Amino acid sequence: MNAAQKIMERINALAKITDEPGRTTRTFASPAMRGVNELVGFWMREAGMTVRVDAIGNLIGHYDGEQPAAKILLLGSHLDTVRNAGQFDGPLGVILAIACVEELQKKGIRLPFAIEVIGFSDEEGVRYQTAYLGSKVLAGSFDEKDLEREDAAGISLRDAILNFGGDPEKLKTARLNPKQLLGYLEAHIEQGPVLEAKDHAVGIVTAIAGQSRCKITFTGRAAHAGTTPMNLRQDALCAAAGFILAAESLARKTPGLVATVGQIKADPGASNVIPEDVDLTLDVRHQDNSARRKAVAALQKIGRKISAARKNRFVWHFVQQTDSIQCSPRLSRLLTVAAKKHQRHIITLPSGAGHDAAVMAQITPTAMLFIRCKQGISHHPEESAKVGDVRTALAVMSDFIRQLAQTS
Amino acid sequence: MNAAQKIMERINALAKITDEPGRTTRTFASPAMRGVNELVGFWMREAGMTVRVDAIGNLIGHYDGEQPAAKILLLGSHLDTVRNAGQFDGPLGVILAIACVEELQKKGIRLPFAIEVIGFSDEEGVRYQTAYLGSKVLAGSFDEKDLEREDAAGISLRDAILNFGGDPEKLKTARLNPKQLLGYLEAHIEQGPVLEAKDHAVGIVTAIAGQSRCKITFTGRAAHAGTTPMNLRQDALCAAAGFILAAESLARKTPGLVATVGQIKADPGASNVIPEDVDLTLDVRHQDNSARRKAVAALQKIGRKISAARKNRFVWHFVQQTDSIQCSPRLSRLLTVAAKKHQRHIITLPSGAGHDAAVMAQITPTAMLFIRCKQGISHHPEESAKVGDVRTALAVMSDFIRQLAQTS
Repeated sequence: MNAAQKIMERINALAKITDEPGRTTRTFASPAMRGVNELVGFWMREAGMTVRVDAIGNLIGHYDGEQPAAKILLLGSHLDTVRNAGQFDGPLGVILAIACVEELQKKGIRLPFAIEVIGFSDEEGVRYQTAYLGSKVLAGSFDEKDLEREDAAGISLRDAILNFGGDPEKLKTARLNPKQLLGYLEAHIEQGPVLEAKDHAVGIVTAIAGQSRCKITFTGRAAHAGTTPMNLRQDALCAAAGFILAAESLARKTPGLVATVGQIKADPGASNVIPEDVDLTLDVRHQDNSARRKAVAALQKIGRKISAARKNRFVWHFVQQTDSIQCSPRLSRLLTVAAKKHQRHIITLPSGAGHDAAVMAQITPTAMLFIRCKQGISHHPEESAKVGDVRTALAVMSDFIRQLAQTS
Repeated sequence: MNAAQKIMERINALAKITDEPGRTTRTFASPAMRGVNELVGFWMREAGMTVRVDAIGNLIGHYDGEQPAAKILLLGSHLDTVRNAGQFDGPLGVILAIACVEELQKKGIRLPFAIEVIGFSDEEGVRYQTAYLGSKVLAGSFDEKDLEREDAAGISLRDAILNFGGDPEKLKTARLNPKQLLGYLEAHIEQGPVLEAKDHAVGIVTAIAGQSRCKITFTGRAAHAGTTPMNLRQDALCAAAGFILAAESLARKTPGLVATVGQIKADPGASNVIPEDVDLTLDVRHQDNSARRKAVAALQKIGRKISAARKNRFVWHFVQQTDSIQCSPRLSRLLTVAAKKHQRHIITLPSGAGHDAAVMAQITPTAMLFIRCKQGISHHPEESAKVGDVRTALAVMSDFIRQLAQTS
């Protein structure tokens, strides 16, 4: 069995470790997370690593460098999942990283730096609605107030950490020392359709897009659908429809911008009553923060204009705004050089979804390798990646590590 | 107290007879309906009428003509209401009709025809989800199968009629004999904003619009809002938005057409997921059936075109289609002549909402007088009409009756 097939088999095995029988669900500090940490820890040891689980439940395998005091290259991704997840989102990056180390170990190679493979304990944030618990602790950006958060069963994050064998008092000391780090490389399925559309196995991530999440309300006037002539209407749904198309149109003509209305609710919501209130969500993302802010400002203006023309009231509320995170140009360049050995054309693309890399970039140069997935499907049991693409990713990561060793 | 003020006071008094304390709700054969039948029956007797309640609970006051075998002019509207209703929808037409008879009685006038004032027992259809129970029985179009329908408490329509003192076995014999009828005149608040916009107290109804009620589904493909570029999306909500605006645009440029999307539902309905399925309702009305059918066909075509361009699937389902009912040209002409004595300009307009008149038109020439209401608000406690407009309506109806007497 070759290395890529072995990775696929391991990923398949991990998907069976679950909190919910019949489907894959692994939430922070759950029994299933204990199970994956044991199995993945076993594979890390097989690959010549020493293994520890830190205070927040991150699984970390350490492969020594040539010198005991060598700097550390971090590789990894997360081992938790969404509910009813696919197999690849998270585990692929961890298992690929272990395979890289396994190759070194088989060849008896020690590098001028150590490698640590991290299986983050929480990226999806399903249990406590706060994503990146694992990477935030390692980056030192964990907020102690979150310890009081409770899950659906009323168990505090503090107790969940304790029950898992972690230590809520030692989260601060679990942080990594940035001075010891060389960088962080994360491999992850794209969760989008771009690489498939281009017929590329892998792509290089330029940035993790910033995001503006907004809640918008149009308020017109309810009236009888049969007795109110078109020219006397203040239809909030028509106003909302105009806005939805305007947002799409702006995003289509702005390179790199995505804008999505995912939720809509019309009140009173009767087939024979003109809608009075329409609530909708707007999600705007771009890798360039100023481009995103400009688009959001333009959409606010468009919304106001549509509302005024239709005698609607218009309310705009920012739910959340996060800036984009740029990947390290130096590491991304190295990754591109490595990728070019295995794939004719290489594209760079932003990640529209968040990743542990966004947090790790706060403390160390970070690069990300995207792997093609089928139809962009993710967070779904049908999530799928090809063994050939995994082989390419493994080769690219191995070459990247070798080149980094030559330049370090 | 003049006649119009008296009408307003009576309407106010009726609004207090309710099945739900604190708001006006009178459903078919309820205790409140028994109460209004008693009070309105009392007023009918005061106005010189003999009063009966028929097998379905319609309250009917009879005012004799000059001859015992005279034909009958029907006047009226309904006494039941929606939940949390206004005061005017229904009762205004009944109380105005009684006031017309009261005038005749005061002056000791007998006409060449009898007058019957009908307070229909069910027009809104709240309790059994089948509107026009009262007028259907009188028109002979009641469907006996409906007797097995049950209300929310599991009480069959048959038992409700019995409990109310009616007779489910005699519904057929309660039908009116068309040969004895001269016609039917119904006064009703407009429930729309047209008369207010024109600053007219009353208007003449040309027809009760036909209606096509449709359920439409656009199906695209769910995908991640952050990772799916605009050019690779199959966003069902954008398709639906395009359709909503196209329907509005077609209705705006087609005289007399109204088209309304009142309900919309987007699935999966998460702010960060591109909508895969959007269900919406479409309500299309026009007084001319061929104009309505042409518009519906055009919208089906537009929907298919939008779907094809966006790689969506498109499903169209007719929930209900009812043809329009034309008012009697002769009676409407008489009504217009009468109205011109009291209002400088008279407009004719279709009724976008259904009325007992639509059923009565099956058996006798029918006319309708619309009375201005505030902001078109109806089916709401804020429903409101002015005493001055009620005075005009009373004068128009009285003149109509006098002119009909001269031409009969």
